[in-house]
Amino acid sequence: MSDYQPISEQLDDVEGAREDGHRKMDWARQHMPILNALRDDFVADQPLAGERVGMAMHVEAKTACLVELLAEGGADVAITGCNPLSTHDDVSAALDEHDRITSYAKRGVDDEEYYAAIDAVIDHDPTITVDDGADLIFRIHQEYPELIDSIVGGCEETTTGVHRLRAMAEDGELDYPVFAVNDTPMKRLFDNVHGTGESSLANIAMTTNLSWAGKTLVVAGYGDCGRGVAKKAEGQNADVIVTEVEPRRALEAHMEGYEVMPMAEAAKEGDVFITTTGNRDVITEEHFEVMRDGVLLANAGHFDVEVNLDQLSDLAVDTYEARDGVQTYELDDGRRLNVLAEGRLVNLASPIALGHPVEVMDQSFGIQAVAAREIAQNGSEYDAGVHDVPDELDREVAEIKLDADGVEFDSLSAEQSEYMNSWDHGT
Amino acid sequence: MSDYQPISEQLDDVEGAREDGHRKMDWARQHMPILNALRDDFVADQPLAGERVGMAMHVEAKTACLVELLAEGGADVAITGCNPLSTHDDVSAALDEHDRITSYAKRGVDDEEYYAAIDAVIDHDPTITVDDGADLIFRIHQEYPELIDSIVGGCEETTTGVHRLRAMAEDGELDYPVFAVNDTPMKRLFDNVHGTGESSLANIAMTTNLSWAGKTLVVAGYGDCGRGVAKKAEGQNADVIVTEVEPRRALEAHMEGYEVMPMAEAAKEGDVFITTTGNRDVITEEHFEVMRDGVLLANAGHFDVEVNLDQLSDLAVDTYEARDGVQTYELDDGRRLNVLAEGRLVNLASPIALGHPVEVMDQSFGIQAVAAREIAQNGSEYDAGVHDVPDELDREVAEIKLDADGVEFDSLSAEQSEYMNSWDHGT
Amino acid sequence: MSDYQPISEQLDDVEGAREDGHRKMDWARQHMPILNALRDDFVADQPLAGERVGMAMHVEAKTACLVELLAEGGADVAITGCNPLSTHDDVSAALDEHDRITSYAKRGVDDEEYYAAIDAVIDHDPTITVDDGADLIFRIHQEYPELIDSIVGGCEETTTGVHRLRAMAEDGELDYPVFAVNDTPMKRLFDNVHGTGESSLANIAMTTNLSWAGKTLVVAGYGDCGRGVAKKAEGQNADVIVTEVEPRRALEAHMEGYEVMPMAEAAKEGDVFITTTGNRDVITEEHFEVMRDGVLLANAGHFDVEVNLDQLSDLAVDTYEARDGVQTYELDDGRRLNVLAEGRLVNLASPIALGHPVEVMDQSFGIQAVAAREIAQNGSEYDAGVHDVPDELDREVAEIKLDADGVEFDSLSAEQSEYMNSWDHGT
Amino acid sequence: MSDYQPISEQLDDVEGAREDGHRKMDWARQHMPILNALRDDFVADQPLAGERVGMAMHVEAKTACLVELLAEGGADVAITGCNPLSTHDDVSAALDEHDRITSYAKRGVDDEEYYAAIDAVIDHDPTITVDDGADLIFRIHQEYPELIDSIVGGCEETTTGVHRLRAMAEDGELDYPVFAVNDTPMKRLFDNVHGTGESSLANIAMTTNLSWAGKTLVVAGYGDCGRGVAKKAEGQNADVIVTEVEPRRALEAHMEGYEVMPMAEAAKEGDVFITTTGNRDVITEEHFEVMRDGVLLANAGHFDVEVNLDQLSDLAVDTYEARDGVQTYELDDGRRLNVLAEGRLVNLASPIALGHPVEVMDQSFGIQAVAAREIAQNGSEYDAGVHDVPDELDREVAEIKLDADGVEFDSLSAEQSEYMNSWDHGT
Repeated sequence: MSDYQPISEQLDDVEGAREDGHRKMDWARQHMPILNALRDDFVADQPLAGERVGMAMHVEAKTACLVELLAEGGADVAITGCNPLSTHDDVSAALDEHDRITSYAKRGVDDEEYYAAIDAVIDHDPTITVDDGADLIFRIHQEYPELIDSIVGGCEETTTGVHRLRAMAEDGELDYPVFAVNDTPMKRLFDNVHGTGESSLANIAMTTNLSWAGKTLVVAGYGDCGRGVAKKAEGQNADVIVTEVEPRRALEAHMEGYEVMPMAEAAKEGDVFITTTGNRDVITEEHFEVMRDGVLLANAGHFDVEVNLDQLSDLAVDTYEARDGVQTYELDDGRRLNVLAEGRLVNLASPIALGHPVEVMDQSFGIQAVAAREIAQNGSEYDAGVHDVPDELDREVAEIKLDADGVEFDSLSAEQSEYMNSWDHGT
Repeated sequence: MSDYQPISEQLDDVEGAREDGHRKMDWARQHMPILNALRDDFVADQPLAGERVGMAMHVEAKTACLVELLAEGGADVAITGCNPLSTHDDVSAALDEHDRITSYAKRGVDDEEYYAAIDAVIDHDPTITVDDGADLIFRIHQEYPELIDSIVGGCEETTTGVHRLRAMAEDGELDYPVFAVNDTPMKRLFDNVHGTGESSLANIAMTTNLSWAGKTLVVAGYGDCGRGVAKKAEGQNADVIVTEVEPRRALEAHMEGYEVMPMAEAAKEGDVFITTTGNRDVITEEHFEVMRDGVLLANAGHFDVEVNLDQLSDLAVDTYEARDGVQTYELDDGRRLNVLAEGRLVNLASPIALGHPVEVMDQSFGIQAVAAREIAQNGSEYDAGVHDVPDELDREVAEIKLDADGVEFDSLSAEQSEYMNSWDHGT
Repeated sequence: MSDYQPISEQLDDVEGAREDGHRKMDWARQHMPILNALRDDFVADQPLAGERVGMAMHVEAKTACLVELLAEGGADVAITGCNPLSTHDDVSAALDEHDRITSYAKRGVDDEEYYAAIDAVIDHDPTITVDDGADLIFRIHQEYPELIDSIVGGCEETTTGVHRLRAMAEDGELDYPVFAVNDTPMKRLFDNVHGTGESSLANIAMTTNLSWAGKTLVVAGYGDCGRGVAKKAEGQNADVIVTEVEPRRALEAHMEGYEVMPMAEAAKEGDVFITTTGNRDVITEEHFEVMRDGVLLANAGHFDVEVNLDQLSDLAVDTYEARDGVQTYELDDGRRLNVLAEGRLVNLASPIALGHPVEVMDQSFGIQAVAAREIAQNGSEYDAGVHDVPDELDREVAEIKLDADGVEFDSLSAEQSEYMNSWDHGT
Repeated sequence: MSDYQPISEQLDDVEGAREDGHRKMDWARQHMPILNALRDDFVADQPLAGERVGMAMHVEAKTACLVELLAEGGADVAITGCNPLSTHDDVSAALDEHDRITSYAKRGVDDEEYYAAIDAVIDHDPTITVDDGADLIFRIHQEYPELIDSIVGGCEETTTGVHRLRAMAEDGELDYPVFAVNDTPMKRLFDNVHGTGESSLANIAMTTNLSWAGKTLVVAGYGDCGRGVAKKAEGQNADVIVTEVEPRRALEAHMEGYEVMPMAEAAKEGDVFITTTGNRDVITEEHFEVMRDGVLLANAGHFDVEVNLDQLSDLAVDTYEARDGVQTYELDDGRRLNVLAEGRLVNLASPIALGHPVEVMDQSFGIQAVAAREIAQNGSEYDAGVHDVPDELDREVAEIKLDADGVEFDSLSAEQSEYMNSWDHGT
C-alpha cells in the first residue's frame, strides 16, 4: 500500500495551481474537436460506468482533456506521470479537483517517488490501464500480479511501449489484452510524423535561438518519428543526413533524397543530431570525439539512453548550463558539445516544452478514448496479448476529425464497391 | 492450342527490330545494378533450372532484363504483353532471339489477339507464372484449370492484380500460391510512389508541353500511387487537390497540407486530373459538365475504366487528336476536354511512354527474380493463396541496391540487439 | 537634455542581471562566426576609433554582440531599444557594463520613456547612427536638426525603416547618407526569408502549442518575409493562402503553387493569419466578421498596425489572456479570435520570443559592422540620401560566412572571366 | 543580298508540313491566354502597322503564336531560327503561309546556312528586331551597320543575349535601344525558374528513362535557371549539389539546404550534371577523370560550351549513340559518360524536345509583344543601349495572366497608399 499523496496534498498554493491548470485545459479544449465530439456521446452514454482506469502518462493540458473525458464517461480515474520531467503540477492539481479523478503526478520527483506514485495508482485497483511507455503495465506484472485477474484490458500510447509489450508477449509474460494505440494509422502517422517532427524542431529552435536554414541535421533512425523530423527539417532548409540499421529504411531515406551514412561518418558532418531510434548508445564516445565545436545533441526517442551521457561526462573537462535546457560539455581540445533536455525527449522535457501539438494529441487521445470504450464494452472478447485497435474505431475517429475540420470526401457507389470486390473484369 | 505466333514470325524486319531492341536493353542494363548483381549469382547457381516460366508483362527494355535474367538462371520463358499498347516490338523481337525465350508480345493487338497470345504462353505449360495485372493467372484458372496441378507458384506485380487475386482467394478460387510482389515495402514505395509519380508527370508534361507551376492538379485516390503523384507534383509547384473515399487516407492527405474535397467540387477547380484509384467511374458525366475549358484527363491506374470515356463521347459534339496521345473532346458549349493516352495508364501507354524509370524497375524486378527463385526452391512449402514475399528476400534486394549505390549504413551492436529485444529496462 | 538614466541605474539587481546577460551573450557568440572573425580585425585595426555610435535596436543577446564589436573596434556606443517589448534588461545591463557602451534600453517602457531614452542616446552626439525602424534618424531630423552636421552617416536594418527613409529622401528631408542594410542580398534573403520565416512559425507554435500540419495559413504580403513564412509553413505541411496587392507578386505566389485570393475570401478559409505587408489595416472588421472560431492572428511586420485591434476590441464582448502572449477576443456569436503578442511582431514581442535566429543575425550584423566601418572610413564620400551597401562589403561578409561554415566554392579561370566579358562569340 | 530561300521553298511536302504545324499551333493557342487576350487588342488597334519585324528565335509552336500576334498587329515579319537544332520545320512552314510572315527557319542547317538565313531576315530591312541570343543584333552591327539608322529598337529574350548586349553597350558598340526582356520579373522568374527547371528535368527523364529519386544531381550555377533546376529536382527527391563562383549565390544555395562544393569535388559525387552558368568549360577533363560510370551530362545554358566535349572526345576510346539524344563516351577504364543533346540546351535540342512549357512562354512572349508595341509607339524616346522593360508593361502582362487564371487579388485602399508613402508615423 503506497502512502504517496495526490498532488493536491503536496502543493502550497493548490487554488492558484488549479486556476492555472484550468486555463491551460481551456485552451487545449478549444483545439480538440475530436475529444469535444466524443464528450457529447460519453456524457450521454456513460460507456465507462463502473470502470476504474489507472493511467501513467505525461500529465499536461492535453492529456488532462482525455482524463476528463474518461471520467465524464463514467470511470473513476487515478493517474500519475510517465516521466519525471513532463508533469505540469498545475494541470495535475486541476485534474485532481475532479470528483472522479485522483492525480499523483508531480514534476521533478526522484526515482523512488516516481514508483511510489505508480504504486499509488495501482492501489486504486484498476480495471483498465492506460500507459505511455508501459511502466504501469510492467509494474503491475512485476509487483502486483494478483491484480491482473480484475484488469479487463489496457491501452499503450508509444512505439517504445508497444515494443516492450510485444517482447513481454513473446516471452508469454503479458497477461491481459492491450491495445497498441501506437500502431494505428491515425496515431502513428499524425502523432509520430507530424507531432514529434514539428514539436522537436520548434523546441530546439526556441531553446537555442538557432536556425535550421543551412544546418546539417543528422537524424538517427528513419521510423515514423525520424521521417517526420527529417521531412519537417528539410522544409526549414536544413540539409538532412539519415543513419539507419535496417536496409529497407536506409534505402527509403536514400530514395527520398537524403544522404545516408553510418553515424561514424555523420558525426563529422552534423551541426545538430536528433536521435529517434528507440535504442541505446546511438551516439557514443567514438562519435563525440569527431564532432564539431558547438553541435547540438537532442533525443526524440522515449528513453534517455540514445545519447550516451556517461561517456560524454567522462570525456568532458567542464560542464555547465549554457542556457535553460542546454547543458554544455567542454572537451579538452576546447570543443563544446551542447546536450538538450538532459538527453530526455526534447519535445517533452525541455524547459519550455509544451509536448506534442494539441490537435495531434486530440487525434491520438481520440483513439485512446474509443479504445478504452471498447475494452469496457468488449474487453472480455480479447485474449491476453498485444492487439491492434479495431479498424472501425480508427476509422470512426478519422471521420470525426474530418467532419470537425470541415473536410468532405467521396464515398463509393454501389457499382464501385462491387467493382473493388470483383475479380472477373479483364484488361 | 493457340496458333498465335511469336513476334519474330510477325515482323517484316526482324533483324532491324532485334538490333533496336538490344540497344534499348543495353541502356537499361547500364542502370540496373540489382539485376546485374543477381545475374552473376543466377548464372553460377542456375536456381531456375528445369522451370518453365510463363509471363504476361509490359514488354519493354527493363522487363526484358528480368526475362533474360530468369532465362540465364536456367528457366525456359514464354512471355506476352499485359496491355495492348505497352509492348515495344523491337524489344520483344530481341527477347525472342534468346534460346530459352519465346515472346508473343506485339503492340496494338486487338482483344482476340491479346488473349490468343496469352493462350500461346499458357501452351508452354508453365511451372511458374509472372503477372502484371493477373490476366495470365486469371486466364489459367478460367480456361485451363487442368494445368494448375503442375504450377508451383506465381508472382504478381501490381496493386490491381493483387487486389483481384485476394478477391479470388477469398472466394476460394485461387488454386496455387502467388507472391504479392506489389505488397513488398521495396516494390510498393519505390515503384508506386517514385515510379508512377515521376513518370506520370513527365509523360504528361512531355506529351502536352504544359507546365505544372501554378496548375491545379486533382489527384483521385491517395494510395501509394496517388501519394507519389501528389508529392512530386507539389515539388513542381502545382497546387494539389486530393479526392478519396477512405476517411483515414483523406485525413492523411489533409494533414499533409493538401486540399481534400469530393470530386464533384474538385472537378470545377482542376486544370489537370490524374486518377490512381484502381476503381471505375471516378470521373464521370457529372464531372465533365462542370470542368474548365482545356483541362487534361489522365489515368495512372491499371485499367482504363477510371475516366468514363463512353459518357464523355456521348457528351462530345466533336473529337479529334490534338497531339500525339491527346484526344480532344469538344462539348456543345465549346469547352475542350483533353484525354491522354485514351485513358489507359499514362506512363505506359502514351506515344512517348517509356514506362517506369529504369532504376525503379530494377528494384521491382529484383524482387520478382528472388521471388521466382524462392518458388523454384521452396514453392511446395506454400499453400494456395496470396503470400507476402518473405521479409529476408525483400531485405536481400535492399542490401544489393544500397551496395550498388555506394550507400553504407549502420548495424546493431550486440548490446543494441539485446536492448531491442528486452523489456525489463525502465524509465 | 534628457535625464533618462542608463539601465544600470534602473535595476534592483544589476549584478544578477549582468551575469544573466553575459551568459546569453556567450551563447550568441558561440554561434556568430562572422562577428567573431570581424572582431579579430576590428580589435587589431580600430576602424571606429574616435566615432560615437548612436543606436536604437532590439536589445538582446545577438544585437549585443554587434554593439560590443563596434565598441571593440574603437567606438563609443550609446544604445536604446527600438520596440518597448523587445528589450532584454539583463543583456542591456551587461552591455552597459562595458567601458565604451551606455545602454538605456529597458523592457516595458511607456511612450514617454521610449522617446526619453532615444533622446538620451542623441545626447551622446553621435557621428554614426544605427537604426532598426528609423526612429532614431527620424527623431534627430525632427527634434535635433542642429546635430546633423556632425553625423557622418547611418545604417538602417529593416524594410520598414528603409521605406520610411526613402520617403523622407524623396521629400528632400533626409540630410545625411544612410546605408540601406536591409536591401543587401545578404540581409534581405537570410534575415527576412529565413529569419522571419522560421522564428515567426516557431514562436507561434511554442506560444499556442498548436500544429501546422493540415492548418490553412493565410500569409498577407508576398515580399521576402511573406515568402519565407509561406515556404517554411508549407514545409511544415500547412496549406498556404497568399494575399497581395501587387500583381507580379500575386502571380509569383500563384506560380509557386499557393492559392492567391483577396483577404475578404481568405478570411473565411484561414486557421492562422500572419501579416507581413508593412502596411496598415490588412485585417479589419469586415474580415473578423467572417473568420472561424479559434483562429490565430499574428503580425510579422515591423509595426503593430496590420491587424486593426481597435476594430476588433469594438466587436468583442469579452477579452482575456488565454495563454501568455495570447489575447482572446470573444465576439457576440461566441467565436473566439486569438491575437498573438498584441499584434506586435510575433517573433520579437511574444513572451518567449528570442528574436531572429543567432546565425541569421550574425549575417545581418556582419553587414552592419562593415557598413559602419565604411561610414567611418569613407562616409564623407557619400551624399545625403539612402545608399545601397557597396557590393564588395556584402561579398566580403558572404565569404567570411562560407569560410566559417567550411563551404568551398569555385572561382573563374582567366578564360572564363574573359568569356563572360566578351560578346563576340557566336552560336 | 542573301539568296537563302523561305522554308516553303525547301520542303518536299509543304502542305503536309503546314497542316502539322497548324495543329501544333492550335494546341499552343489553347494554352496561351495572355497572347489570346493581347490578340484581341492588337487586331483592333494595329499597333505595329507599318513596322517590319526581324526575328531570330526558336521556331516552334509557341514562338509561332507570338510571330502571328505581331503580324496580326500590323507588322510584316521575317524570322529564322536561333539554334540549328530547335526549329520545327512544320511550324516554320505554317508560319510562312501567313501573308505577312516569311520564315527561313529550318532544322539541321549547317553554319553557313544558319548565317545565310539570318542574312535573309536582315534583307527584309527590319525596323524592329526580336532576338533569342542576340545573334541577329550582333550580325547587323557586324555586317550591316548601314541598316541601323532605320531600326527603331529591339527585344532580347535570354540571359546570355542580354549579357552579350550589355558587354557591347559597355564597349559603346550597341547602336540602338534594346529591351532586356530577359530581365523583367515576369520573364526571369517564370521562364528561367519554372520553364528551364521543369522542362530540363522532364526532357532528361524522358530521354533516358531514368529516375530522379535518390539520384545525386550536380547543378552548376545558382542563377535563376540553376535555382529552378535545383528546386524542381529536389521536388523529385534528388539530392542536389550546387557549384558556384559567386560567394553570395553560393551562400544562398547553402542556406537553402543544398550542399555547395567546387566542381572538382562534385564531379566525384554526381549521378547527373546540369550546367546553367552561361560560361564555358564548366565541366572539363579534370572532372571527367573522376566521374562515376554511367553519369549523365546535360546543359541548360544557352551555348554548348559549358561541357568541354573536345576534351571528352580526346579522352574517349569509343563513342556511340546509346539512345536517341544520348551520346556515350567510353573511357579507357571502361567508364561510360553519357552526353545529352550534344551539350546543347537539353530542353530545346533533345530529340523529343518541346522547349519551355506553353504557359511559361505565353508569359514571356506577352512581354515581347507589349515591348514590341512600345518600340513601335515610343521607340524614338529611348537612347541606344540596353533598357529594362518599363514596369507598367510587365505589370500589365501579370494582370492579364491573373485574370485569365481566375486569380483575384487585393488593391490598396487610399489610406493604405497614403501610409506606404508617408514617413511620419512612429512605433
